[in-house]
Amino acid sequence: MKKVYVDLAERKYPIMIGQGVVATAGPLLKSLEFTQAPIVVSNARVWRLHGSTLMRSLQQEYGRVPVIHIGDGERYKNHSTLMKIYRGMFRAHADRGSWVLAFGGGVVGDIAGFAAATFMRGIPCVMAPTTLLSQVDSSIGGKVGINVAEGKNLIGAFHQPAAVLTDPEVLKTLPKRELVSGLQEIIKSAAIRSKSLLRYLERNLPAILACESQQMEHIVGEAAKIKAEVVSLDEKEGGLRTILNFGHTIGHAFETATDYRRFKHGEAVAWGMIAALEYGKELGTMDSGEADRLAQLVHRTGRLPSLQGISLRDLWSALARDKKFLAGDIRMVLLRNPGEAEIQSRIDPVSLKRFLKSFLSANTAGRT
Amino acid sequence: MKKVYVDLAERKYPIMIGQGVVATAGPLLKSLEFTQAPIVVSNARVWRLHGSTLMRSLQQEYGRVPVIHIGDGERYKNHSTLMKIYRGMFRAHADRGSWVLAFGGGVVGDIAGFAAATFMRGIPCVMAPTTLLSQVDSSIGGKVGINVAEGKNLIGAFHQPAAVLTDPEVLKTLPKRELVSGLQEIIKSAAIRSKSLLRYLERNLPAILACESQQMEHIVGEAAKIKAEVVSLDEKEGGLRTILNFGHTIGHAFETATDYRRFKHGEAVAWGMIAALEYGKELGTMDSGEADRLAQLVHRTGRLPSLQGISLRDLWSALARDKKFLAGDIRMVLLRNPGEAEIQSRIDPVSLKRFLKSFLSANTAGRT
Repeated sequence: MKKVYVDLAERKYPIMIGQGVVATAGPLLKSLEFTQAPIVVSNARVWRLHGSTLMRSLQQEYGRVPVIHIGDGERYKNHSTLMKIYRGMFRAHADRGSWVLAFGGGVVGDIAGFAAATFMRGIPCVMAPTTLLSQVDSSIGGKVGINVAEGKNLIGAFHQPAAVLTDPEVLKTLPKRELVSGLQEIIKSAAIRSKSLLRYLERNLPAILACESQQMEHIVGEAAKIKAEVVSLDEKEGGLRTILNFGHTIGHAFETATDYRRFKHGEAVAWGMIAALEYGKELGTMDSGEADRLAQLVHRTGRLPSLQGISLRDLWSALARDKKFLAGDIRMVLLRNPGEAEIQSRIDPVSLKRFLKSFLSANTAGRT
Repeated sequence: MKKVYVDLAERKYPIMIGQGVVATAGPLLKSLEFTQAPIVVSNARVWRLHGSTLMRSLQQEYGRVPVIHIGDGERYKNHSTLMKIYRGMFRAHADRGSWVLAFGGGVVGDIAGFAAATFMRGIPCVMAPTTLLSQVDSSIGGKVGINVAEGKNLIGAFHQPAAVLTDPEVLKTLPKRELVSGLQEIIKSAAIRSKSLLRYLERNLPAILACESQQMEHIVGEAAKIKAEVVSLDEKEGGLRTILNFGHTIGHAFETATDYRRFKHGEAVAWGMIAALEYGKELGTMDSGEADRLAQLVHRTGRLPSLQGISLRDLWSALARDKKFLAGDIRMVLLRNPGEAEIQSRIDPVSLKRFLKSFLSANTAGRT
């Protein structure tokens, strides 16, 4: 088992990564000094696949363990699910000494984490992420929250987990598209911070796409380490943490412009990275051969949903709505070299818009 | 104008106390580097009395200022009001650079503070408390939240205000009972931490009950200083902050046992202090003459609603539900001397229950 620490001003928490972490969650959590039984939050799909494995281990240490089931999918990351979790916690007689174990993907982690953040002014939350995306991204860093009609993650908090239990074994039951979507976030992490992980991904892509244990454990561990490092250096997104948004500014705009229906998050980020790489070439911030090599890696993971039918107008208005796209000073994360990001500020909107127009047309040409 | 600082690990914030702070809020906030217009949250009653004074000053500095009105009273401190505030914020195009100005009593501060704590993972909130209770207590210390069916303040967060603007002038429109209720919290603060403030209260009680400016400014300032000190030393209630609960364990039980209908919060705390003083005498932790002298001060503020009809059974089951009344180890804040509190742990439930029985009967005798 690998241990990675997220080291914050107030405290430090471990990410435990290894095959079988779910099957040994009970003793593991006891060893981390969680003496009381957790309140588990999970969804039906994850529970059907891995619930009994987790439960066997938890019950052995804690006896009766209450479980709150929520719906599966982003559309359940809302207020009424949050209320349902609170109600379940009260029914389980949760108090200020209780803690939550979030067992599922990003939706479960975000909403269970937010419930924990706000229950009696905050109780601990342990994340046990079950998707590749949540293992390398959303479970680390303390961003929790829910969606509202006005947009995604607009209500939320920073609530660092007490620990993260990451088991690459559970990825074997993940739908292929989910796996590839998570892989894009790993490529992103490598792109901004680790040339060696980039090269590893290039060399081992077939084994990774086949979800082979050794390779998955390696890349999940490395990506978690990168996220942990960046979060440790900048907990609340004052500066450095912004580089995690590489590919996300334009990626988010693709998601919004298609009403979150066409792309998995990672797929949109993949297009966002490809666009950012192209734009970097245009601005001359990055060597064109290196940019192409990285875009090539993104493309090799599998065929991305097309950009067909996305108008420049929709894309631009989505960009302008993005909270990271600050009025007056457009900033984007670009690469200087593979494994090295920089925040480019004062981007000229006219040149960016012209670039996006040609990017859209180049990537949809001949596919009408 | 007096300035008191709350000095936390992460940052420090000022409490500005003085006559006319509301009428000069605009320039004051500008000088504290709030450059963007606030989103004001207030209630109809406060707004009718003092809204135009605040608004004149804000508009002079900020131009158009959006205001969100919420219902007046504890029963509005709920989820649907919270949603209303979020909606108002979105309608006002609030973003991560926005900030909230909570103008009202404890309900407005708690719920607007919680909205700020969770809007886009937290934006600043400035408190402008308009009741004596909120000026010396709830506006300082960062506890924000809402009530749910299961109990008061059970959903919430720690979100320290960015600044507190306290104007004793607005207290002149406060109903007498509200004033006295707040005064009880000031007596509490003095009782646990400042003998000199206790003596000042004893000497100046008539002027204080008449809400005279000079005396109010003095006691509000001193009480705010005590709260700020305690919070600075213990932000998240790990230890010292518990002493702020003097009178609150039994006080809360009186509130619960009467369904929050009979007592103002401060009135219940007044009874809680009187009970804790008596119990301290019984345990021998405090000199009996000093205890009586302090109970005398509490009684001199005015006639408290009676304890008539409260059964020992209801009181005890309310106590057992209180989240501060930890299972297995009953703890209470008692005084050692006037101005000096101590946390008494391992209180014997049998002796406490017997004491409460005789306390109830002594304080309701002859009033049937």
